[in-house]
Amino acid sequence: MRIPLQQSGDMPLYRQIETYLRRQILDGVLAPETKLPASRQLAQELGVSRITVNNAYAILESEGLIYSKGGSGVYVLARTTQPAEPGAIPPDSWPRWQQAIAQKVELPYEVLHASPRPANRHPKPIRFTGVGDPREYPIKDLMRAMHDVLQRNGASALEYGGLDKGYAPLRTTITHVLASQGITVHPDQVLITAGSQQGLALVCQLLLKAGDTVLVENPTYNLALELFRTLGLNIVGAPVDQEGMCVAAIEPIFQQHQPRLIYTIPNFQNPTGVCMSGERRRALASLADHYHVPILEDDFVGDLRYEGRVQPALKTLALEGRVIYLGTFSKMLMPGLRIGFLVAEGPVFQRLAALKRVSDLTTPPLMQRALESYVNVGQYHRYVQRSCRLYRQRRDAVLAAIKRHLPSTVQVEPPQGGLFVWVRLPDGVSSVALLPLAAEAGVEYAPGVRFFVEPAQGEPYLRLNFATLTPVEIEEGIRRLAAALSRAPGT
Amino acid sequence: MRIPLQQSGDMPLYRQIETYLRRQILDGVLAPETKLPASRQLAQELGVSRITVNNAYAILESEGLIYSKGGSGVYVLARTTQPAEPGAIPPDSWPRWQQAIAQKVELPYEVLHASPRPANRHPKPIRFTGVGDPREYPIKDLMRAMHDVLQRNGASALEYGGLDKGYAPLRTTITHVLASQGITVHPDQVLITAGSQQGLALVCQLLLKAGDTVLVENPTYNLALELFRTLGLNIVGAPVDQEGMCVAAIEPIFQQHQPRLIYTIPNFQNPTGVCMSGERRRALASLADHYHVPILEDDFVGDLRYEGRVQPALKTLALEGRVIYLGTFSKMLMPGLRIGFLVAEGPVFQRLAALKRVSDLTTPPLMQRALESYVNVGQYHRYVQRSCRLYRQRRDAVLAAIKRHLPSTVQVEPPQGGLFVWVRLPDGVSSVALLPLAAEAGVEYAPGVRFFVEPAQGEPYLRLNFATLTPVEIEEGIRRLAAALSRAPGT
Repeated sequence: MRIPLQQSGDMPLYRQIETYLRRQILDGVLAPETKLPASRQLAQELGVSRITVNNAYAILESEGLIYSKGGSGVYVLARTTQPAEPGAIPPDSWPRWQQAIAQKVELPYEVLHASPRPANRHPKPIRFTGVGDPREYPIKDLMRAMHDVLQRNGASALEYGGLDKGYAPLRTTITHVLASQGITVHPDQVLITAGSQQGLALVCQLLLKAGDTVLVENPTYNLALELFRTLGLNIVGAPVDQEGMCVAAIEPIFQQHQPRLIYTIPNFQNPTGVCMSGERRRALASLADHYHVPILEDDFVGDLRYEGRVQPALKTLALEGRVIYLGTFSKMLMPGLRIGFLVAEGPVFQRLAALKRVSDLTTPPLMQRALESYVNVGQYHRYVQRSCRLYRQRRDAVLAAIKRHLPSTVQVEPPQGGLFVWVRLPDGVSSVALLPLAAEAGVEYAPGVRFFVEPAQGEPYLRLNFATLTPVEIEEGIRRLAAALSRAPGT
Repeated sequence: MRIPLQQSGDMPLYRQIETYLRRQILDGVLAPETKLPASRQLAQELGVSRITVNNAYAILESEGLIYSKGGSGVYVLARTTQPAEPGAIPPDSWPRWQQAIAQKVELPYEVLHASPRPANRHPKPIRFTGVGDPREYPIKDLMRAMHDVLQRNGASALEYGGLDKGYAPLRTTITHVLASQGITVHPDQVLITAGSQQGLALVCQLLLKAGDTVLVENPTYNLALELFRTLGLNIVGAPVDQEGMCVAAIEPIFQQHQPRLIYTIPNFQNPTGVCMSGERRRALASLADHYHVPILEDDFVGDLRYEGRVQPALKTLALEGRVIYLGTFSKMLMPGLRIGFLVAEGPVFQRLAALKRVSDLTTPPLMQRALESYVNVGQYHRYVQRSCRLYRQRRDAVLAAIKRHLPSTVQVEPPQGGLFVWVRLPDGVSSVALLPLAAEAGVEYAPGVRFFVEPAQGEPYLRLNFATLTPVEIEEGIRRLAAALSRAPGT
C-alpha cells in the first residue's frame, strides 16, 4: 500500500498514515472488510518504524474505523454512526424494541399539542408564565453561601457520602420552618428531593402501578398530570369550587374507582389559586383514612398568603403515617435550586429514601449545604414576608387590570395567595385559539387545556402567573390580552 | 373562661391568650372536642377587642390545635402529629397501605446488611472507597465559572425554561468530547441527567417492568443491582474474565431468559477493573442486534486509561438506535456535580427526555451552565491527562503495596485503567468477616458481596478504590489491610 509521507512535514508520520487511511475508509476507497497490511509489512513498505504504524492503527480502531480479528489481521469496519439529524432515519429501520416503545408509550400531551410559533411574533412578549420573579432571587446571598461552604468544608462539600436522606442540618432547618407553620415532624422523617416534582414521581413510582387510579383535583398541576399519564395511571378528577376540592362529591369515587392515591394542592391550588377550607380538609383526611387511601399533599406555595386565615396542613389533621407532604424551596427562593423535600412516616419513608438513592444517588450536595447555610427560620420568614408584600401588589394589579381592560363576561376568582389567577373567557372563546393572537399581541399565558384530566374541558380557561411581572408590566400585559381577545373568534 | 392577662406586659394580648390556650390544650386540660367560647363572648370576658381573640384563635387553628365547625363554633382538635422518633410507633398502627408496602417492597440489600460500626474504631481510617480524590477537584475553576455565568446570564441562569433535554451548549460540548473519543453523535441525541445513575434509572423505568430480565456482568456496579432489585427485575449474570463479559457464554441466556436489556460496563468495569476486548464488543453488539435486545453501555471512566489500546465504544460498533450510552462528569471532575448524560437515537430518546421531565423537571441549570463555561474539549483532555498521570501512579502504588504486604495467596488482576483493583482473598477468608477487623486496623474497602447477583458469591472478594488516596496513604492502607488479614479467621 502506497501512502504519501512527508518525512520533513510538521505532521508526525503516524498522523499522516492515520489521516490518509481515514479518508480512504470514509470515502469508501477502502471498502468494509478490506484487510489492511500487517503493521510489520506496512512499516517496511513505508520505511517507518512498526510503532508508527501501530499508533495509526490504534487511533483508527479507537474511532471504530478498523478492527483486528484475533491473530488474522486488521480489517476495515463498516461505518454505522455518522451523526444523523434525529428523524433522518426511516422508522422501520429501528430495532423491534424501539418500534414497540413507540407504540406502547405515548409522548406527553404538551409535546404532542405544542402550539406552533406564530409567524409574526412580538419582539418583547410579556409572559404570565414561569415561576417567581428572577429579578427578586437572592442570588448574591446564595453565591456567598456557596463560598462559605467551600471555605468551611473544602472539596468534601462536593462529595455525596452519607447523604442518603439528604444533608442532615438542612433536614433539621426544614423541621424548624415547618414547625413555625404548625407542622411538627422529626428530621429523620424528612427526605431531600430534586424539587417537589421528584417527590411526586418517587411516591407514584413506589405506591402505584400502571392501571391504578389516582384521585386529583380537576383542574390540577399540569406536570402532575403528565407524570400520571406517563406512568399509565387511571386519573379520576374531583370538581373544585371556591372552597377547594369538593370532598362531598368524592365518596362515590372511592366506592367506584378504589383510588390508590389522593393528590391534592390544598393551598392556592395550581391552577385555580383556590385555598381548601378547614372543614373540607378535615373531611378529606377522615375520608381517606376510612378508605385506607394515602394522601399526597403538595404544599408548593403554602406560605404565600396575602389575606384570610391560615388553614392547618392535612399533615397535621390526619393520623401519623396517613399523609405524605411535599414542600419545595423552588417557588420561595429560586426554581433553579431544584431542592424540595418530602415528609412521611412509617415503612413508606425508608422505601422512598431507597428509591431516591437508586434514582439519582443524591441531590447536589453543594446546593444542599449552601441552602442550609443561607436559610434559617428567621431569614426564611423575612423572605416570605417580602415575597408576600411584593406579590400581593402584583395580584391586586392583575385583578385591577382585568377589571379595567377585559370584558365583564370574563370571570375571575380573586386568589387569597399564591402565584396564579384562573381566568374564564367569555362563552365560545377558546384559550387555545386565542394563543397565537396573544403571541402576536405580545402576551403569553398557560392555556387551560394543560390542567384538566380531559384537556378539552380547559378550552374556556387560562392561567396567569402574576408573580413574575411588575405592576407596570402586568397592566400592559392585560391590555395586550384584551387586544388579542377583541380579535378572537367566537366573541 | 378566665385567662390571666398582663395589660402592661411586653407580650401582646393575643399572644398571651394563644400561649395560655396552647398550654391548656397540650396539657390535656382542654380535651379534644371541647368547645371554646365564641370570640365575641371571650372578648367580653377578658375585656379585650374581638380581633385580639380572633388572632389568637387563627394561630391555634393554623397549628392544628383547634378548628371551627361551620357556624357552630370553635373546638379543640385531637393532637396527632407530635414529632415521634421514627420507629416509635407500633407497626400495626400504620394504615393498611403502609403495611402492604412494607410487605411488598423489600429494603435494599445494602440497608439490610449494613455492617455494624465496630466498638473500637480507628481515629484516622484510610478509605479505599468513594470516587476520585476531592483534593484534586477543580473547585476554584468551577466557582469562577459559576460567577461568570451569573454575571453573563444573571438570574435567568437559575430558571429552567427550555431545558427539556438539558442546556444546549453543554450538549454540544459533550458531542465534541465524544467525537474526540471516536463517538460521533448529534447534540439532539444527548440528554443531560442527574449523574449517570439517573440515566440508568430512566432507561429501566421506560423499557422494563417488574419480572423482566436484565442481563449484567457478574459482578457489576452495586447501585445498578440495587436499582434492578428495587424495580423487581429478574437479574441474570454473565461471567467476567480478563477480556470482560464472557459473550460466548450468554447465547444460551438469550434463548432461556429472553432478556429485555443488557447492562454492561465495557471500560475498566466496576468492580473488576477489566476492559472488554474489541472482539467481545463486536460479538456482543451483533448478538444483541440478532436477539433484538437493547444494550445499555455505562462508560463511567472510559477516559481513565493508563496503558494498552483504546477499544471502540459499543455505541460505535452497533447500528443506529441499538445502544444507549451513559456518560458522566462525576468521576472525571467531581461527583457532587451530579451531571451525567445519555446518548440514544430513535423513538426511545424523546420518551426518555419526557420521563426525565416528569421525574425532576431538569438538572440544576446553574450547574449545567457552569460546567459548560468551564469545560471544552481541550480543557477536558488536559484534565483527563492529568488524572491519568496521577491515578496511574496510585494504581502502581497499590499493586506494589499488595505485592509487598499481602500474602501471595491474594490474587489481583492489574487493571489497565479506571479506579479499582479487585482483590481475591486467600481461600476461606470472607471480606465480610474481615470488615470489622479492617475497620479496627483503620482501613475501609467495599466487600465483594455488594457486587454479585448472588451476594454470597462475593465473600472471597473486595474492591479497592486507589484513586482517592496518595501513594503514601495507599502504602499505609495496605499495610493495615495485611494486619487485619493476619487476624482474620480462616487463614
